[in-house]
Amino acid sequence: MNAQQDSAAGSDKDRVVIFDTTLRDGEQCPGASMTFEEKLEVAELLDTMGVDIIEAGFPIASVGDFESVAEIARRTKRAVIAGLARAIPGDIARAGEAVRHARRGRIHTFVSTSPIHLEHQMRKTQAEVLEIIAATVTQARNLVEDVEWSAMDATRTPLDYLARCIEVAIKAGATTINLPDTVGYATPDEYRAMFRTMRETVPNADKAIFSVHCHNDLGLAVANSLAGLEGGARQIECTINGIGERAGNAALEEVVMALSVRRDVLPYSTGIDARMLTRASRLVSAVTSFPVQYNKAIVGRNAFAHESGIHQDGMLKHNQTYEIMTPESVGVSKTSLVMGKHSGRAAFRDKLKAMGYELGENALNDAFTRFKDLADRKKVVYDEDIEALVDQGIAAAHDRIRLLSLSVIAGTRGPQRATMRLEVDGRPVTEEAEGNGPVDATFNCIKALVPHAAKLDLYQVHAVTEGTDAQAEVSVRLEEDGKAVTARAADPDTLVASAQAYITALNKLMRKRQSVNPQAAAG
Amino acid sequence: MNAQQDSAAGSDKDRVVIFDTTLRDGEQCPGASMTFEEKLEVAELLDTMGVDIIEAGFPIASVGDFESVAEIARRTKRAVIAGLARAIPGDIARAGEAVRHARRGRIHTFVSTSPIHLEHQMRKTQAEVLEIIAATVTQARNLVEDVEWSAMDATRTPLDYLARCIEVAIKAGATTINLPDTVGYATPDEYRAMFRTMRETVPNADKAIFSVHCHNDLGLAVANSLAGLEGGARQIECTINGIGERAGNAALEEVVMALSVRRDVLPYSTGIDARMLTRASRLVSAVTSFPVQYNKAIVGRNAFAHESGIHQDGMLKHNQTYEIMTPESVGVSKTSLVMGKHSGRAAFRDKLKAMGYELGENALNDAFTRFKDLADRKKVVYDEDIEALVDQGIAAAHDRIRLLSLSVIAGTRGPQRATMRLEVDGRPVTEEAEGNGPVDATFNCIKALVPHAAKLDLYQVHAVTEGTDAQAEVSVRLEEDGKAVTARAADPDTLVASAQAYITALNKLMRKRQSVNPQAAAG
Repeated sequence: MNAQQDSAAGSDKDRVVIFDTTLRDGEQCPGASMTFEEKLEVAELLDTMGVDIIEAGFPIASVGDFESVAEIARRTKRAVIAGLARAIPGDIARAGEAVRHARRGRIHTFVSTSPIHLEHQMRKTQAEVLEIIAATVTQARNLVEDVEWSAMDATRTPLDYLARCIEVAIKAGATTINLPDTVGYATPDEYRAMFRTMRETVPNADKAIFSVHCHNDLGLAVANSLAGLEGGARQIECTINGIGERAGNAALEEVVMALSVRRDVLPYSTGIDARMLTRASRLVSAVTSFPVQYNKAIVGRNAFAHESGIHQDGMLKHNQTYEIMTPESVGVSKTSLVMGKHSGRAAFRDKLKAMGYELGENALNDAFTRFKDLADRKKVVYDEDIEALVDQGIAAAHDRIRLLSLSVIAGTRGPQRATMRLEVDGRPVTEEAEGNGPVDATFNCIKALVPHAAKLDLYQVHAVTEGTDAQAEVSVRLEEDGKAVTARAADPDTLVASAQAYITALNKLMRKRQSVNPQAAAG
Repeated sequence: MNAQQDSAAGSDKDRVVIFDTTLRDGEQCPGASMTFEEKLEVAELLDTMGVDIIEAGFPIASVGDFESVAEIARRTKRAVIAGLARAIPGDIARAGEAVRHARRGRIHTFVSTSPIHLEHQMRKTQAEVLEIIAATVTQARNLVEDVEWSAMDATRTPLDYLARCIEVAIKAGATTINLPDTVGYATPDEYRAMFRTMRETVPNADKAIFSVHCHNDLGLAVANSLAGLEGGARQIECTINGIGERAGNAALEEVVMALSVRRDVLPYSTGIDARMLTRASRLVSAVTSFPVQYNKAIVGRNAFAHESGIHQDGMLKHNQTYEIMTPESVGVSKTSLVMGKHSGRAAFRDKLKAMGYELGENALNDAFTRFKDLADRKKVVYDEDIEALVDQGIAAAHDRIRLLSLSVIAGTRGPQRATMRLEVDGRPVTEEAEGNGPVDATFNCIKALVPHAAKLDLYQVHAVTEGTDAQAEVSVRLEEDGKAVTARAADPDTLVASAQAYITALNKLMRKRQSVNPQAAAG
């Protein structure tokens, strides 16, 4: 057993287990859904970063969810892989099946315990819920050794009843007990006291690790998580960028850095390599198309920026006057001018490696061609430009639709008109369309050439780097039958990037349809 | 004296004074600078919302800062207007002059008290700093009755020295004592304890209101602010959307709603009308072009959105199962389909009134013309569309540059080309330019027609409403000699919106140059 396993098993009393639920609680918030490939990419980064437990999804929710949990379980090298399950035998069986191939799999099952949930949602008595807990945890424990049980809405549950639930869950085999602040209602003092009381009054409390899971509805998720540790919890459930239901979950990067910077008063340690936090934040922001606000703690673009003259003066004189952590400690490096049109293939490969990309030969050739093309058109090629073009290439190999050419006429005189040539399943097709604005005209061409019912749910443009010749990065989200896909594309021409992003989203949607069809067949 | 003044003076022991510093700490963060008109608009909304004290700026920093503080002081009906001043006689005199016309003006002066600041930044001894505090607070108190003194970096200051500083400041006449967590370093327990110790040990502590000012570097700003109240503080310094230096300040909306929702354990009241929080958030986001992240507490677009099937089911059965506050309580209303091309002028005026806009006849006519134009081109006109077109019209009356026409050819075949006709100081001019993408080509036309040295600092596009025929809202930030202006424009054609936003920013920059020139003259 390595050090990580030891601590996850509770041998080091101040080691805090980081349980990331970006792929479950994060992914289930409106608009954040990710594709299969995107989930694998996020999981791989979380694992490399040192997350102890990755909650990879909710296997019963859909075939897609099941498959991504199972695939992440197969591929992940270090982290425990958890699958969520309601207190229903079918859910638990499915979760067990999904995490079966993990180095170590966990079933995370939950049931509501608060009076308001029991009365209005579940319509069960407290005694009935105790029986459900015993039965479902037992079932889970028969499938895997690592079972987490959550008392949904714990913070609005009477303490004596909560204690009985926990005792039953541990007796039935739960190894982790999670007491979530499901509605983001608790204050730090209340939350700390709840854990302290449970650790003190539940007779078999020492047989399980207790866990915090906080929502940020009142801006208290991080403070509550830390207070829970003081009350005896040793697992934190959190997400990258704090995404999640409503106001989101405690942000992993904030929790980790609070523990790191204030080790003097919060004497707990985690296994996270903080230098990867910025990269993780950017990846999750990109695959969900959720912007990170500029003043977001740790990972916002202003988090380490000092504007006012007074502060700048202090910084120049001594950087600790205003800085409690360095940008480098969380993986922020200055954007550096990297390469131009004369850079060769070897230099490009070295650069990619330094940026953390390991591409195969074909993908590398492909990226290099796009790089040369960009370098011809853009004076300065930044790290971010390269990131954008590499990301764009990933998974584009098997696309059914490809953009051959686009030309657009736009301006104040309208109507705007676009002419587009696509290759659809190997066959070139052309269309001309008008629209309300050049983007609308461009998208109307695609709709005419590839008829589809998906709805455009989000359209966003940002500059990848600075200057008027910056590449535009466009994000498009399409929704069909309640399933959403997001795609990005970058190009110096906003309209080309828009067309490319829309087409990439359509390609993703087509792949998604294919992978969902087995479900229909399976009934 | 009305109730608000009573409580600001400390007669109601659980009334918490809300001190908003969006226009000072918020505005001084990189990229958030606002124009004179934007500051007036924000201040008016803060005053209407019930903010007790508006910190309007840092008068010595520039003539522009001085003028906006002075004008806000003149116009504001209810709130106290504060101006910031370093511990320097010239700063204090200038701040006193700026707030002189306020119904009630406050000078807010500060000095560093922590060893690291004294040693590395100020190069003063503790004894020297005590003398500075006595002298500067006395000077301020001779100018105004309401004086706030801040111990910069209080949380890294030894408690015994901090107590002496506070005693001296109160003796010299300070009515509010602010103990900021300048570097965002404190934990709630530490911060609470610091206030408790000061309230207990400083002999004249009961003669002043104590204030919290928290930064969010570790995600703890809201929790620290609330902990400060428990320690005896009764003023909270905060900003809309939590903007501010680095990771920002405590978010006003989170602090206010935490106090409102958890009144049972946090028995404090504020004078804020929470139903205006959403509008305030949108205004500040718009004038700074700082996006609000989707899962931002209270004001993020997902803050009240429930995605997962389980939660939706609970919500349908009983809305308290997952909701601790209603969207309506913070002013969120569903986007409603409002009007189409057949809507008349009277209906349009009524609609604007319902949305909180009171326009004069000319501005109304102007907005109505743009509304009809938009309704011709767009099937569905939402509240947000109307907001965008009204905002766009404000302050455009005296523009030196106007867009007459634009036509653009773009696409994969490049180079992209734009033809533009502008009116500059009443004279029509035309230009054709190529560029790396259609936006670049468009901006190159403007640069050729109106030569200028300003640098494009930010270019952003978002859809105002849903659908492919959505209006695009473009934000452009230009920087010249360290001063930045931001402008927005909306149009169904992204390129027209881009041109319009760039031109509006240039017009703002020209006005700014004019208003700054007096400074050069005054020396």
